[in-house]
Amino acid sequence: MAILTPVDRPDDPRIDDYRDLTTADRRPDRPGGRGLVIAEGVVVVRRLLDSPFPVRSLLGVPRRLAELEPDLDGLDVPAYAADAGTMAEAVGFHLNRGVLAVADRAAAPEVPGLLAGARAVAVCEGVGDHENLGSLFRNAAALGVDGILLGPGCSDPLYRRSVRVSMGHVLRVPFTRLGGAWPASLEGLRHAGFSVVALTPTADAEPLATAGLAGERVALLVGAEGAGLSDEAMAAADRRVRIPMATGVDSLNVATAAAVAFHAVTGGG
Amino acid sequence: MAILTPVDRPDDPRIDDYRDLTTADRRPDRPGGRGLVIAEGVVVVRRLLDSPFPVRSLLGVPRRLAELEPDLDGLDVPAYAADAGTMAEAVGFHLNRGVLAVADRAAAPEVPGLLAGARAVAVCEGVGDHENLGSLFRNAAALGVDGILLGPGCSDPLYRRSVRVSMGHVLRVPFTRLGGAWPASLEGLRHAGFSVVALTPTADAEPLATAGLAGERVALLVGAEGAGLSDEAMAAADRRVRIPMATGVDSLNVATAAAVAFHAVTGGG
Repeated sequence: MAILTPVDRPDDPRIDDYRDLTTADRRPDRPGGRGLVIAEGVVVVRRLLDSPFPVRSLLGVPRRLAELEPDLDGLDVPAYAADAGTMAEAVGFHLNRGVLAVADRAAAPEVPGLLAGARAVAVCEGVGDHENLGSLFRNAAALGVDGILLGPGCSDPLYRRSVRVSMGHVLRVPFTRLGGAWPASLEGLRHAGFSVVALTPTADAEPLATAGLAGERVALLVGAEGAGLSDEAMAAADRRVRIPMATGVDSLNVATAAAVAFHAVTGGG
Repeated sequence: MAILTPVDRPDDPRIDDYRDLTTADRRPDRPGGRGLVIAEGVVVVRRLLDSPFPVRSLLGVPRRLAELEPDLDGLDVPAYAADAGTMAEAVGFHLNRGVLAVADRAAAPEVPGLLAGARAVAVCEGVGDHENLGSLFRNAAALGVDGILLGPGCSDPLYRRSVRVSMGHVLRVPFTRLGGAWPASLEGLRHAGFSVVALTPTADAEPLATAGLAGERVALLVGAEGAGLSDEAMAAADRRVRIPMATGVDSLNVATAAAVAFHAVTGGG
């Protein structure tokens, strides 16, 4: 069981990890300029506790910590209990989820390890919006995608807002940066047995529904909302598929489009 | 062309429609307690101008109004031009989209009219979250869904946040309340030739991918995130389909799940 420790004062140095939470995930004093991993709410904290990320501590109102008690069994870190007012003063705003946990970052997996045994992965180019990236992880987790590779221009999935929007699935779906020259680095996916499939609204792409991706070993390449995939990335793909769009409609949100495509790959049929 | 009218003071009564915008869409003084329809940003304002909703006026910084000039041709309403500071003071916060328009509500279509000629419609039960409802309209528009029927417990699609999240597609996809006793009212859809298909995570539902919905005349029944469809609604459906979920994952967001299902109905294949 974590060590339950009451905290009465918002300036208690033991809860410094939680101070001014709106900026706590950007920490120039830490390696790579990146901050701690912050989980908010019972569901996401539980997912963090169940992840490879080394938890440093929890901070919550007693009721929420009590809810988490079974999950804290065997965990040797402090669980700071405070009232809602003290928490709000420490973190800088009122938290209606009532519990937080912080963890250090874990080492990212190596690309070959992530691909080994994977059937479907996503490769992102330029997905810089934290909410879209978080939603994409949530959808990947729900639809059985085995890992996510981040090409150039992607934001940090461990940013607080992404963790929250993903419902904690950024802590569960393996991901790493795809190093090397882009998009030549996609070649490695092909060598590992994946078909590199670009998802694009381009009119001359194959309709997703008839592309026969079900059960294939697919690396689905998705680009930024708005700009879409770069010409270079499109050219480096083996195939290009599209979700037919009604006339005059802007394309779907990138995470939603990816969900439709993930289902076509992993959803059976 | 709309009548371009400079406004220098935030308390100018001519821009009262825009005052305190955070509450402007809940107006107990107006019919049904509901407020004006508010469009924010060039894209959504353009969609409003192109909709059946009777526009009352626009308010924007000169640069954004200039962008909209071609769309204002033939429109006989005032376009109030103000600087960003004046706008912020009038509406109560800084608007980074720089242009707004307000419209009166239009009469909702009748159910038979909405169904006539439609191939795919969505029926919502308990979708009370404004963002989810807005996203659902956006996805419906993108994927060629012809209309949306609102069962009990749904929020107002014309609430400002829904309009924004939908990218203005609540102004474009026909919708109306499904009156009568719920869920007996679904019978009317069946009489109109639709198969009523409930989307549910229930394990004994048919997998979506093999349900053969492509090209069928489908009324897709979707429920609230979390609670899901009521037992009564499930029982009233002709078929139940599910999107297979990875173990241990909470279900997809309702708008995302609906998008996956819409694609299965309308995406060809």
